[in-house]
Amino acid sequence: MKTRRDVLRTGAIALGGSLLPQRVHASTTPSLRTPLPGHATPGLPDHVTPVVLPNGTKLPYVMDGGVKVFHLVAQTVKREFAPGMVVDAWGYNGECHGPAIEVVEGDRIRVLVTNELPERTSVHWHGVRLPNGMDGVAGLTQPHIEPGDTWAYEFTLRQQGTLMYHPHSDEMLQMAMGMMGFFIIHPQQPRRPRVDRDFAIFLQEWFVEPGTSTPDPMVMLDFNLFTFNARAWPGTAPLVVRTGDRMRVRLANLSMDSHPIHLHGVSFNVTGTDGGPIPSTAWWPENTVSVPVGTTRDFECVFDEPGDWALHCHKSHHTMNPMGHQLPNMLGVDQSAVAERIRKHLPGYMPMMETGMGNMHEMGRPKNTLPMMTGDGPFGPIEMGGMFTIVKVRNELPRGYDEDPGWYAHPPGTVATKIG
Amino acid sequence: MKTRRDVLRTGAIALGGSLLPQRVHASTTPSLRTPLPGHATPGLPDHVTPVVLPNGTKLPYVMDGGVKVFHLVAQTVKREFAPGMVVDAWGYNGECHGPAIEVVEGDRIRVLVTNELPERTSVHWHGVRLPNGMDGVAGLTQPHIEPGDTWAYEFTLRQQGTLMYHPHSDEMLQMAMGMMGFFIIHPQQPRRPRVDRDFAIFLQEWFVEPGTSTPDPMVMLDFNLFTFNARAWPGTAPLVVRTGDRMRVRLANLSMDSHPIHLHGVSFNVTGTDGGPIPSTAWWPENTVSVPVGTTRDFECVFDEPGDWALHCHKSHHTMNPMGHQLPNMLGVDQSAVAERIRKHLPGYMPMMETGMGNMHEMGRPKNTLPMMTGDGPFGPIEMGGMFTIVKVRNELPRGYDEDPGWYAHPPGTVATKIG
Amino acid sequence: MKTRRDVLRTGAIALGGSLLPQRVHASTTPSLRTPLPGHATPGLPDHVTPVVLPNGTKLPYVMDGGVKVFHLVAQTVKREFAPGMVVDAWGYNGECHGPAIEVVEGDRIRVLVTNELPERTSVHWHGVRLPNGMDGVAGLTQPHIEPGDTWAYEFTLRQQGTLMYHPHSDEMLQMAMGMMGFFIIHPQQPRRPRVDRDFAIFLQEWFVEPGTSTPDPMVMLDFNLFTFNARAWPGTAPLVVRTGDRMRVRLANLSMDSHPIHLHGVSFNVTGTDGGPIPSTAWWPENTVSVPVGTTRDFECVFDEPGDWALHCHKSHHTMNPMGHQLPNMLGVDQSAVAERIRKHLPGYMPMMETGMGNMHEMGRPKNTLPMMTGDGPFGPIEMGGMFTIVKVRNELPRGYDEDPGWYAHPPGTVATKIG
Repeated sequence: MKTRRDVLRTGAIALGGSLLPQRVHASTTPSLRTPLPGHATPGLPDHVTPVVLPNGTKLPYVMDGGVKVFHLVAQTVKREFAPGMVVDAWGYNGECHGPAIEVVEGDRIRVLVTNELPERTSVHWHGVRLPNGMDGVAGLTQPHIEPGDTWAYEFTLRQQGTLMYHPHSDEMLQMAMGMMGFFIIHPQQPRRPRVDRDFAIFLQEWFVEPGTSTPDPMVMLDFNLFTFNARAWPGTAPLVVRTGDRMRVRLANLSMDSHPIHLHGVSFNVTGTDGGPIPSTAWWPENTVSVPVGTTRDFECVFDEPGDWALHCHKSHHTMNPMGHQLPNMLGVDQSAVAERIRKHLPGYMPMMETGMGNMHEMGRPKNTLPMMTGDGPFGPIEMGGMFTIVKVRNELPRGYDEDPGWYAHPPGTVATKIG
Repeated sequence: MKTRRDVLRTGAIALGGSLLPQRVHASTTPSLRTPLPGHATPGLPDHVTPVVLPNGTKLPYVMDGGVKVFHLVAQTVKREFAPGMVVDAWGYNGECHGPAIEVVEGDRIRVLVTNELPERTSVHWHGVRLPNGMDGVAGLTQPHIEPGDTWAYEFTLRQQGTLMYHPHSDEMLQMAMGMMGFFIIHPQQPRRPRVDRDFAIFLQEWFVEPGTSTPDPMVMLDFNLFTFNARAWPGTAPLVVRTGDRMRVRLANLSMDSHPIHLHGVSFNVTGTDGGPIPSTAWWPENTVSVPVGTTRDFECVFDEPGDWALHCHKSHHTMNPMGHQLPNMLGVDQSAVAERIRKHLPGYMPMMETGMGNMHEMGRPKNTLPMMTGDGPFGPIEMGGMFTIVKVRNELPRGYDEDPGWYAHPPGTVATKIG
Repeated sequence: MKTRRDVLRTGAIALGGSLLPQRVHASTTPSLRTPLPGHATPGLPDHVTPVVLPNGTKLPYVMDGGVKVFHLVAQTVKREFAPGMVVDAWGYNGECHGPAIEVVEGDRIRVLVTNELPERTSVHWHGVRLPNGMDGVAGLTQPHIEPGDTWAYEFTLRQQGTLMYHPHSDEMLQMAMGMMGFFIIHPQQPRRPRVDRDFAIFLQEWFVEPGTSTPDPMVMLDFNLFTFNARAWPGTAPLVVRTGDRMRVRLANLSMDSHPIHLHGVSFNVTGTDGGPIPSTAWWPENTVSVPVGTTRDFECVFDEPGDWALHCHKSHHTMNPMGHQLPNMLGVDQSAVAERIRKHLPGYMPMMETGMGNMHEMGRPKNTLPMMTGDGPFGPIEMGGMFTIVKVRNELPRGYDEDPGWYAHPPGTVATKIG
């Protein structure tokens, strides 16, 4: 396998230009292979609000003449979904999902793709208008990229929007393993109104047999892990926003199901897709945006109430961590006699689901498996998992957007009250 | 557990106001706990057409100063899905789903919530803009409501639309058991055009093992009962409309699947979501509106043809009652020899599905289980189940909207005709 | 059973008009029962671009006075999904799905329906505004059509759009067997901008046990075959388009799942549903249009880049042919020792899925079963199946639209390149 330096040099030769970096826009990174943090501002013009990827990263680049040069490395990676659970996934540049590529309309870009996977791959630029031979459909528009090889894609961006990249070679398996990333193209001219906060979250679902660590790519329906940027609650970072900020959230979905993402505390407009901005005459107001498979959805809103507002998938099983769907239905069944007998042999045994599931976050589970419902909030257990996070809206953020401001302190008299 | 009187008095003390009813807007109900019928008009201004809930109910209120006071009681309830099948569900105020809360933009409301379930709960006001502490996310914005306790929520309504309420505590189980209701906010100023008929239907799916009565809340995919306002065809009430009426239907979905609801006889516009009214420039004409999970959809139309027009989910398994999905495929298999032998021991035995399923509504089934396809129409068996009802459109309704006008009498020469 | 001539004569008597053909608009067909090819132009006005059904057909008609007379014959049919796999389906006029009915706003039409199935049926005109008795809901608006019988429907078209027909009698089974067709109504006045190419594709999913040939109509979720116009890749015909052409694609879905159809190379606007044209103020730009069950979606676009552009469902399992979902997860498991031992008895044995699935198109399979991933492209195996085809966009089409122009010849320097 070639070194990065070799690849860059070879790339320069193959494509007829010099790849020696002329101006490094991503000066905080020691290498093109090493992703930037999710809140980095990789050389964007002043009119652009950089996107923030909670729990995610961005891909750095170097300039080669007028060309932004990126380097994606397809790899097996270990990804912690939440404290206590590490998954053997596939991704790019040591990350799962892959680092976001964040560019500007009019940019010419070159993406080097090195395949360090055990099988061949390719990269398709989902939604990007480009020459047919750069489309990345292995077999149809190019050969497969064999393990160990490096290929170059190069094209000029003629659009704006929230796009994606993913393999188009054994794509069912490779996407099930986590191989995907954002490809975000900012407009050349400022769009109005300007957004103050711009987040991007990739939705994904997985089946990992409890007690194991490798996703099962053959599963079509019965998934048991549901993630935001490949993290499951309580492993998901909050979105930090100021009251009055205009917030955009970009959602992407390459799983097998649509995910209806629900935001508490405010209504929003759906303002964009992977096809680009939706004209404002066509905006729909929503509290929940259903993100179909193979699409992205942008929404925008302004909070006028501070607080800790939940943001989650509204399919109720998608805000749970692994649970057995094959258990007998014990709801309402009096298990006291049998529980008594079991406790003689197993002190502390608790009958399951007799009155509901609200106590099941306290139950035992196999190693490397998340509790089904978990996460302590300021008022007790939150009893969620999976696709769940919190938008923390504050009137003041003394330490800025990049620090979790902690739990919201409700003004007296504004919380639901026990009266009997 | 406190009595209702205690709860009201305690509420008054806790919230600093008097809860003695000053003006009873729901004079037909003896108690705040007892729901009103689905076509009640609970103290709405003249410009509002009250919503009708086929097979459903509404929550009454009393005024406390300028505050509308409601009382939701979370309970286990028995619900008849259709004649011959009663389900042990969970709901509110003896009903499943819960009674609709129907209010007006600008109202200040107080909702007392008493938990008579065997486990803790909370109430989230889906899509309502309110102070964070009133959002009902147990653990995050308030403690869980323990069994036997009563809590008060209070907020002012700053929007209009078709919203919902449901638990945000063990919510996967509690919603699977049926805990949800409409929260409909009428606009303060009349919207144009005025609707003549305004219906609301909650979509839900369940798994009840044939022969049992308790829904299995662990089921994620393989549901076997599909309901409109917790009723399955032929248990669903018709929607009665006059030719030329402007009809609105509000659909809500807190199940695990999107439900594409199809209306015969007319095209409609999708005019609202739980985010509020859709501007008319953004309306889509449809014959089928897909209602994603965690959303509501309003549509509006005017029938110019009288008749009995079907309204149903277009996922074909969702217009069936329980059937075994694990049966071997006998379609086209000649079972005559084996049927002959079986009939020696079991007179009248009929081979299954040899030529299709059109005869299966006549087959035997376990106790407390609905026939798979059922319902006799004016022209023979309708062969449907589940999410199916009929919009009865008539030029004249001598006995008004609240009485089923019977089957449509087709004018001669307007019915498909056998010609050979 | 009556002959076609009898049926027509009887129809004439029953309906009071003469059915002797006055002007045959479909002169290329010897019989009303025999479908026209998918690119036929059945007597349409000059301002209309006729629809093309890749791998599909259209229904001919004869004129009876001012009435267009069609004849649908419900039948069991054999359908080749792709070379090597024939399915025992149900359909119309020897075809599965049924031939498209392509008519014009203002037309008066009569459709004779003969039932040659082993069970009763009916035909519902999905989305068509008509007298209630012509709606085809067996039991509700007419009796069921018994085997051997012929019925007549007659109505005048008062709308335009991409509609459908399908049974409304044992409809779950009959639709699962493939009984459905397009019902396309062109506008009376030209719509602007005119489209140059207008395609129609019916989406369907099936479960056919590998090695058998009859779809299992009881399957609700776990389908294993996914088709465009009842063909699976590599059996799907390409869509041939010129650079700069305005292309419309009409998608219809009567399966059990939404299908997000993704087009490479260009963004499109969603311009219509079965409810009719969407006003342009409400158009959404997309790269993937999710087609909900029980709906149609039209989209329009103009390619500015020639090439071979993939068009496929973005649910990754829907671009696969049958595979076992119950296999153990062998990804990353070293099977070399056990493979060595198996090869002693079974020379050539290849361990499955150890490094991925990219090699599984080479594996053995039961008779009458398609390879999971298949189809050779100009650059190697395409590794897809199911709902996949190619839009072939060319600057010049010397032999016209109706001939496959072969693989795209990429100009030098426009294909992704191996550089290391």
